[in-house]
Amino acid sequence: MHSPALPRADLARLDTGLDAALQHKIDNKTKPPGALGRLEALALQLGRLQNTLSPQVSAPHMLVFAGDHGAARAGVSAYPQEVTWQMVENFLAGGAAINVFARQLGWTLQVVDAGVAHDFGPRPGLVDAKIAAGTANYLEGPAMRPDQCQAALARGAALARQAAAAGSNLLACGEMGIGNTASASLLTHYLAPAPLELCIGRGTGLDDNGLMRKKDLLGAAVARYPGATDPLSILAHFGGFEITMMVGAMLAAAEAKMLIVADGFIVTAALLVAARLQPALPDYCVFAHRSGEPGHQLQLDALGARPLLDLGLRLGEGTGAALALPLIQAAANFLEQMASFESAGVAEKT
Amino acid sequence: MHSPALPRADLARLDTGLDAALQHKIDNKTKPPGALGRLEALALQLGRLQNTLSPQVSAPHMLVFAGDHGAARAGVSAYPQEVTWQMVENFLAGGAAINVFARQLGWTLQVVDAGVAHDFGPRPGLVDAKIAAGTANYLEGPAMRPDQCQAALARGAALARQAAAAGSNLLACGEMGIGNTASASLLTHYLAPAPLELCIGRGTGLDDNGLMRKKDLLGAAVARYPGATDPLSILAHFGGFEITMMVGAMLAAAEAKMLIVADGFIVTAALLVAARLQPALPDYCVFAHRSGEPGHQLQLDALGARPLLDLGLRLGEGTGAALALPLIQAAANFLEQMASFESAGVAEKT
Repeated sequence: MHSPALPRADLARLDTGLDAALQHKIDNKTKPPGALGRLEALALQLGRLQNTLSPQVSAPHMLVFAGDHGAARAGVSAYPQEVTWQMVENFLAGGAAINVFARQLGWTLQVVDAGVAHDFGPRPGLVDAKIAAGTANYLEGPAMRPDQCQAALARGAALARQAAAAGSNLLACGEMGIGNTASASLLTHYLAPAPLELCIGRGTGLDDNGLMRKKDLLGAAVARYPGATDPLSILAHFGGFEITMMVGAMLAAAEAKMLIVADGFIVTAALLVAARLQPALPDYCVFAHRSGEPGHQLQLDALGARPLLDLGLRLGEGTGAALALPLIQAAANFLEQMASFESAGVAEKT
Repeated sequence: MHSPALPRADLARLDTGLDAALQHKIDNKTKPPGALGRLEALALQLGRLQNTLSPQVSAPHMLVFAGDHGAARAGVSAYPQEVTWQMVENFLAGGAAINVFARQLGWTLQVVDAGVAHDFGPRPGLVDAKIAAGTANYLEGPAMRPDQCQAALARGAALARQAAAAGSNLLACGEMGIGNTASASLLTHYLAPAPLELCIGRGTGLDDNGLMRKKDLLGAAVARYPGATDPLSILAHFGGFEITMMVGAMLAAAEAKMLIVADGFIVTAALLVAARLQPALPDYCVFAHRSGEPGHQLQLDALGARPLLDLGLRLGEGTGAALALPLIQAAANFLEQMASFESAGVAEKT
């Protein structure tokens, strides 16, 4: 399956032409070489991405995509499907964790109805990008039609481009969708790739019986769809609309030279799809945190990624990505604002 | 040795009387139980410390103590001793990493001359608490006299009490002092306790020869002072004035019910001294980050502590503590600002 909605050109690896100058600038700050640890690597990555010795974080933007999953009604989650739209209402009212962290840390937050099984009507603060009222049940057939997949990719891409046009150079995605850890597990199984069993976790908190049931159901879904390797076909078969929009948003964000801040298990599943379509994508990404969901580590391994935070978060919504922002800003700030040994009159290492 | 400068009373363990109510509030937020990981434990700790279901972070305060070490001239550091006062000038000019992070994150920063071997004269922005122009060389005898140790403890305590009186409920300490990783290694050896060899690292960046020399020198210092166990005597023998002031500041901060945010290896050495004097002290502490200096892990193990961040930082100045502030604020904010399942009309787990 090809996507008319996505860029045709190959995404370029980040140019390393400024690396020597960036490293020189980093090493001449008033600190022992390497003493700012991973912030130094972040500063280098930001400089590469923005092709400047003075990178900045501008108008950090978070898109939270919500969607429902046909398979959720089969019992792959600890919560009823209604929680998806109820949590969207919570986002709109400002009462969810992602609202709290976005307010605290200066993210612009946009909530997107990618395909919730609920009629919100026209609502201020909600982007209506609904593809359908939830996906079809992948336990019975493909979750979405190819044209729905294309439409979701295009809407996600358009939202990222809008944010870039409005001056943002940093995009994070968050998500809400009862049943979407199951979808993320399936994508991870096919695309990491990794044994299905290892890709499945408790999601929002399944007990042992629930976890066994989830494993049985997903095992049956995979048995019906053996040997698939095409990322977009796999996405259309198992993905949620919210996950598909994130794929589109990430690919367009990278094309616009935005830094992409990856959240946890579900966002990284979308990123895995995007990286299989554009292998240079991880160059444009910061991995915010290590999720408590066990399959996340398999995704990180597949992408060669190491997250910044390890706090046992497993909430989704983009909360982990939100919390990483101060570290990214600190990287840009030390590079721009710290004195050099010379300018501060500090003696160098003997 | 007893200290007239310090509280005589035993520091109380934090009261757990509100735990059930705090945990109930945390669990009723619109998220799966436990999904905010370590932020939930932080919220509980803050609530205990402030004895309220609505803890807040008020006027975060950072004291950066600078001091020189007589032993530095013997060659335990990769940098010349002059860097201590030069970096203090850098702090005053706003060009050091800690200035950048404090500005970004909203810390009030106070720079304290605890005992730098340099005459700054009266300087706006510099707290003159100089005990002497550097400690004596512990390779030849005690680093400080008992009265100097007491004076340093008292000055540190007074500064913490001042911050509390001005409305701060959160104190972090930072430090600058060429040679002070050596001092911290010695304190860790005696008080963790741990084998000296494992407590010694490269500090600001010693090469292999420098590291061998540092190990030889510190081995000789320990051989001259066998079997010591009294925390204050060990502190006076090997400590810097900046480390001693931090001990005083931490003990007074805990007495004032401030949350103490511990930085890396040198600050945690001070905390180890304070915790040996007041075993309840770790209840009042958040450990901000895992330092790249290897002895830090021994300190954390001795204190049963697990840091929030692991970014390979090894700069000191309080930089790691500074970067942890948004996480602490996020813990207070989710507890206060997130909706409950009931208030948001979200269905609970099935």
